[in-house]
Amino acid sequence: MRGFSQSITFLRESPTRRIDAIRERLKRERRDIINLSAGQPGLPPPIEIRSLLAKQLVEDNSMELYGYTPSQGIIELREAVSEDLRRLGSIDVSPDNVVIIAGGQEGMFATFMMILNPGDEVVLLDPTYFGYKPIIEYFGGRVKRIGLSIDDEFKIDIEKLKELVTNKTKALVIVSPDNPTGNIIDKNTAKAIADLAMDRDFWIVSDEAYRTLIYEGEHVYMYKYAPDHVISINTFSKDPGIPGWRLGFIYGPSDAIPKLKLAAEEMTYCPPVIAQKFVAAYLRSEARMKHLKYIIEEYRSRRDAGVGALREYLPESRFIVPKGSMFIFVDLSRYIRDSEKFAELLLEKYGVTVIPGTYFSDIYRSAIRISFVVESIERIRMGIERISKAANELRGLL
Amino acid sequence: MRGFSQSITFLRESPTRRIDAIRERLKRERRDIINLSAGQPGLPPPIEIRSLLAKQLVEDNSMELYGYTPSQGIIELREAVSEDLRRLGSIDVSPDNVVIIAGGQEGMFATFMMILNPGDEVVLLDPTYFGYKPIIEYFGGRVKRIGLSIDDEFKIDIEKLKELVTNKTKALVIVSPDNPTGNIIDKNTAKAIADLAMDRDFWIVSDEAYRTLIYEGEHVYMYKYAPDHVISINTFSKDPGIPGWRLGFIYGPSDAIPKLKLAAEEMTYCPPVIAQKFVAAYLRSEARMKHLKYIIEEYRSRRDAGVGALREYLPESRFIVPKGSMFIFVDLSRYIRDSEKFAELLLEKYGVTVIPGTYFSDIYRSAIRISFVVESIERIRMGIERISKAANELRGLL
Repeated sequence: MRGFSQSITFLRESPTRRIDAIRERLKRERRDIINLSAGQPGLPPPIEIRSLLAKQLVEDNSMELYGYTPSQGIIELREAVSEDLRRLGSIDVSPDNVVIIAGGQEGMFATFMMILNPGDEVVLLDPTYFGYKPIIEYFGGRVKRIGLSIDDEFKIDIEKLKELVTNKTKALVIVSPDNPTGNIIDKNTAKAIADLAMDRDFWIVSDEAYRTLIYEGEHVYMYKYAPDHVISINTFSKDPGIPGWRLGFIYGPSDAIPKLKLAAEEMTYCPPVIAQKFVAAYLRSEARMKHLKYIIEEYRSRRDAGVGALREYLPESRFIVPKGSMFIFVDLSRYIRDSEKFAELLLEKYGVTVIPGTYFSDIYRSAIRISFVVESIERIRMGIERISKAANELRGLL
Repeated sequence: MRGFSQSITFLRESPTRRIDAIRERLKRERRDIINLSAGQPGLPPPIEIRSLLAKQLVEDNSMELYGYTPSQGIIELREAVSEDLRRLGSIDVSPDNVVIIAGGQEGMFATFMMILNPGDEVVLLDPTYFGYKPIIEYFGGRVKRIGLSIDDEFKIDIEKLKELVTNKTKALVIVSPDNPTGNIIDKNTAKAIADLAMDRDFWIVSDEAYRTLIYEGEHVYMYKYAPDHVISINTFSKDPGIPGWRLGFIYGPSDAIPKLKLAAEEMTYCPPVIAQKFVAAYLRSEARMKHLKYIIEEYRSRRDAGVGALREYLPESRFIVPKGSMFIFVDLSRYIRDSEKFAELLLEKYGVTVIPGTYFSDIYRSAIRISFVVESIERIRMGIERISKAANELRGLL
């Protein structure tokens, strides 16, 4: 009978999409909206690499830039990724252990498609990126959450984690640098988690989307501590900044690679060739480290402006200064309770978009996530001033 | 426990990928290989549109060309698709009923993700495109096949189809213009199938990948006859010829659209923006109909050369002259039996790639699929001469 799958009901629209839709409507009404919600860079990729691609588009009449590629990705990109991991992370990952994917989202979907059987348990941090839960539930997995305390700077309590792990635990998801908190996992915690994963034999899904966007400290590669138990998901959306081109990569142990490749192949046949050529050229160019330095300096100033404005305009808010990623996760519990209602009113009446804490957390229901990579310093300050106005006017009301 | 999903075992590497891998190896050995297997165009997209994109890449410093898009696709592309369906097919499809996808493969995956529950039956033609079976089985569906007779020019026997339909039938897949036979479904058959689908209430999954590649006759839009029961899957891989860019679209009834959108969003978040902009410009340009006319004339000459060479060099082969698509499906049962062994030997010893009939069919085990869009006329003739040599030398041996 004509009808639909029951499993599809687990899928819901990404909550950021809802905010996007309201913003589009207000934009059409010519309202000035300050975008502190988007998780995408405000700076385009370097002109050197764009010019190279433009030249090939016009001059090359072969199918080189248009044809299918191997489903695992072109070898020059897998080699460039391997070199990049060695250069930036001092880890040794063979190009054979890299699968190029059509963006981080496909990486997440393919990973859980590969590992989950119905009834498996997956441990998520709270707060954590909202993209994981629907995928895990779609594949019949059960989500268990481990609460992190802002007073403890969102550090993972290993003893609490041990208590959550059962013989049904299939995986733990770590996002570092973190979305939404900007926190970076420290080496000792990483090692303790890796030891637990090996001891109790579960997967660590390590989301490294913001691996290169670090303002203080350094990225810890989980892979280093438990190479046979870690699947690392990466994206080129943030660096070099082509979120709409859909490209990323996964690396992991040899027995997982053919399965990840098949899962991705079944979904999209191969990753987009034009993006693959572009990023291969980028990673191996001189422009790369220059561009990275430039965007990090730029985003650091914007982060500092955001932090400063929060301290000035919202003195009763609580947050940690993000060491990486694109976000500040701001607890407004001394002002308001319901972050979803707050975010909607903030957008409709005050013209600022943020993501409510409820999307990331069962605990931080009064928090909001502020992105500092889309708007200019001036507009970030203006946005936070508007948030302060809203928080004070709505204080005690919601 | 660290381990893998049981369902993932239904996924197997695309058979064309295996042929591709052998071909790559022989190429590295500097063997001259004639490619009569690939389902991708040999002609790049029009230079006018490539130049437009090159200009924007260099001159536009906003995130316009790099950022995320709505998961359903940008409105200008959905409008251009709607106009295209009106212009070429005289059908009225609102842009709201169009979902842009990251290629036909994602369209197939999202469609069955949306409709199948375990135990549902799906009717496939025999022969048909090999991409459907693994996806259907991955989602727990059961494949039933209806054999088509080459003597009857692969026409669907409606009475036979009626016998196959049960109360568990969830869908029937129609590929027209067909891969691998090049056949086009006729209006009366389309109408009879549509009536059956409405009467017995099952989905028609209408694969229109080769919709614009027609050499004689015209494409029949299934949607015309049963708009509420048809999901139409389209790709831009063949026209304008950007298979590696991963872009296509689905159109269908209003209750299916939000679900298709969610399925695609969960897999890839949004379709590639650069491909969307490119195709929107293409579909609305003057270059479009000019390019289409050019590639159809070019491919028609190549098809005619292939047909001529088959009659000359393989007089005992049987095939229908393809009215559309990129392929001739050649029954070699008067020469050989096992098309898989034949295809492997043909590649290793005679330097020609074809796809064995077993990949498409349980019946046509001695057939091969020949693509006429990759190689030049001269090399198509040369390839078929080599096939003839192989078929005669191996006659009776396999």
